[in-house]
Amino acid sequence: MEEIYLDNAATTFPKPECVYQAMDEIARTGAVNAGRGSYALARQASGLIESTRKQIKELAGADDVAEVVFTASATLACNVILGGLEWKQTDIVYVSPFEHNAMMRVLYHYQKQYGFKIIELALNRESLELDLSQIRFQFTREHPTVVVMSHVSNVTGYILPINEVAESAKQYGAVVAVDGSQALGLVPVKLKESGIDFYVFAGHKTLYGPFGVGGFISEGDISLKPFLVGGTGSDSLNPDMPGQMPGILEPGSPNIVAIAGLHAALEACCDMERQLSQERKFAEYLIEKLKRIDGVLLYLPWDEMKRTGIVSFSIEGYRADEVGMLLDEDYHIAVRTGYQCVPLIHKYLKDEKYGGVIRVGIGRFTKQSELEILINAIEEIAEG
Amino acid sequence: MEEIYLDNAATTFPKPECVYQAMDEIARTGAVNAGRGSYALARQASGLIESTRKQIKELAGADDVAEVVFTASATLACNVILGGLEWKQTDIVYVSPFEHNAMMRVLYHYQKQYGFKIIELALNRESLELDLSQIRFQFTREHPTVVVMSHVSNVTGYILPINEVAESAKQYGAVVAVDGSQALGLVPVKLKESGIDFYVFAGHKTLYGPFGVGGFISEGDISLKPFLVGGTGSDSLNPDMPGQMPGILEPGSPNIVAIAGLHAALEACCDMERQLSQERKFAEYLIEKLKRIDGVLLYLPWDEMKRTGIVSFSIEGYRADEVGMLLDEDYHIAVRTGYQCVPLIHKYLKDEKYGGVIRVGIGRFTKQSELEILINAIEEIAEG
Repeated sequence: MEEIYLDNAATTFPKPECVYQAMDEIARTGAVNAGRGSYALARQASGLIESTRKQIKELAGADDVAEVVFTASATLACNVILGGLEWKQTDIVYVSPFEHNAMMRVLYHYQKQYGFKIIELALNRESLELDLSQIRFQFTREHPTVVVMSHVSNVTGYILPINEVAESAKQYGAVVAVDGSQALGLVPVKLKESGIDFYVFAGHKTLYGPFGVGGFISEGDISLKPFLVGGTGSDSLNPDMPGQMPGILEPGSPNIVAIAGLHAALEACCDMERQLSQERKFAEYLIEKLKRIDGVLLYLPWDEMKRTGIVSFSIEGYRADEVGMLLDEDYHIAVRTGYQCVPLIHKYLKDEKYGGVIRVGIGRFTKQSELEILINAIEEIAEG
Repeated sequence: MEEIYLDNAATTFPKPECVYQAMDEIARTGAVNAGRGSYALARQASGLIESTRKQIKELAGADDVAEVVFTASATLACNVILGGLEWKQTDIVYVSPFEHNAMMRVLYHYQKQYGFKIIELALNRESLELDLSQIRFQFTREHPTVVVMSHVSNVTGYILPINEVAESAKQYGAVVAVDGSQALGLVPVKLKESGIDFYVFAGHKTLYGPFGVGGFISEGDISLKPFLVGGTGSDSLNPDMPGQMPGILEPGSPNIVAIAGLHAALEACCDMERQLSQERKFAEYLIEKLKRIDGVLLYLPWDEMKRTGIVSFSIEGYRADEVGMLLDEDYHIAVRTGYQCVPLIHKYLKDEKYGGVIRVGIGRFTKQSELEILINAIEEIAEG
């Protein structure tokens, strides 16, 4: 029996057919070491990489002079950004309570080393949305030097007001980094003149590309120290990472197969608005049904226009992982359970007694009929 | 006209058919987030990863208790190893003159921070082979704390005596790290009781797997601080990287598609001895022919049994990149030219006046007829 896949927030699956085809084709005909040889196939590979950078910039509404840095994953992108900043003990780092460990653990890592202060951006405990006026007040009291926030929460699907927070943060000259792993390709982004300096993307999530490629857009004029170093295929006798952005932050052989997959995914990613509205429609349907089941607790931002297709909940009397196991074993439904790699939000959700949440990640290929099977399963489980 | 691909030292191309098939199949049917969900597909993906770790351990003759850490590339593996050591200002770091910038730039990076000393392992300038008795003398004079060496030079194809050097280094308790990017899958490796603590592999080179997966085998009992941090899909509320080896060094979503490709490549990699002897036979043939061409200078270790299928040379009167361009444009032959990301060896090769070397990388699918076309081309170019 085929599994019903509702873990699209972990990775979108399946991908559009063109992604599989593009990867297989380049693997067979052009998977050489781009930028390291001066022969025709290597130049073709380099051309594909540059064209994919351009697609990402356009999708993110970035400035013409913005740079797209490719890394092997969004996690690495976070390591490269935070590892590339010049930290000081006096830094005041604001984070949203929605931050993933891809950002939080890196921040904690540098906090230990430099001793800076980390402050949570104010959250309205009722609406589970950021409290903008309170945040502005926080900023006046302790001026931000760095602000880190997710664009979309991988736990509640909440779309954070990144532009508003960035605008306030920029009044203090803060560096603003946004984790768009759950957003780019699904939620409109306009980086130009937004005050956002770094915007991270994950190829294999809302962009519907493959594993093995992520990165970030560097929109502002903040230069990062190279965190990852190694061969660049150029200026080999130079002991330092040579060249300019983006190459100076991209050591090692580029993964041209993954980049080709992302390139195809980006070509297929044409109607974001329709996609987001379809995910929302499914999410609303699921939420309405779940609300009627006794014992189901939903963790939702109030404003439905501030949500994507991620729906998290608990069932009273069950640990999250027990529900996950029942869904897997008895219904062949794949969801994600637990704390979702997010350390700070759970004190607001108060889901610790359930061992975290049950998360449904709706994707581009989710069908109504699959949601019906899920809803039926949750009803049966909740009834005990 | 199809390109004759002789840049297999940059990346092997093509791969065995089974690699393409395995990647396409898992991309279409099982490319979920391994280790982060407790559903059937995620468990299958985890199982495949564990099975691939086992294959690598067996291929490298590692101890049962050795650990295989996957990274997105060999470059990242070098960053994770060298970034995970506890450096001291008093460290004495020996490197072979064959080291790639994937190791050297990382070492320079930490040298700037910690001020330790870097010493080159003694090389015989005539034979272009390591001088073991001189190295032992170097070690008595200044005791090594860390030794870094390539297993096979990506410039001359020289197979370094890693076991002998490791044995000597271990008498001083040094940490020994070997870069096997050009070796594993082609040259026999036996890590057990070798004194080698870390052995780096590149999935996409001599292992004939895809881009996007590399890593290292940790054979000894030296524990590394996590250099890359992020989500692990477990223990989300822990601010530090949780768990044990190898997971503690593997943040972010595993690239299951690349790992499946590597898994298939490892299954297909059965007759190493035959493979090495075929590459050597082709290399010897090429060398013999090139030796007869006026103006061709070869950069070879003396002992042909200490070489793989990498052959580097210069042509008097030409810069290396000029030859590369002629080979590409007039003969559709892909080779790599320049310094090959290796900073130290060129003072021994004395190839700076040519702007580095012309490197031919012979691979599993190289044909005699392709070498004939190359030899003919070099003859024509050398004749001017």
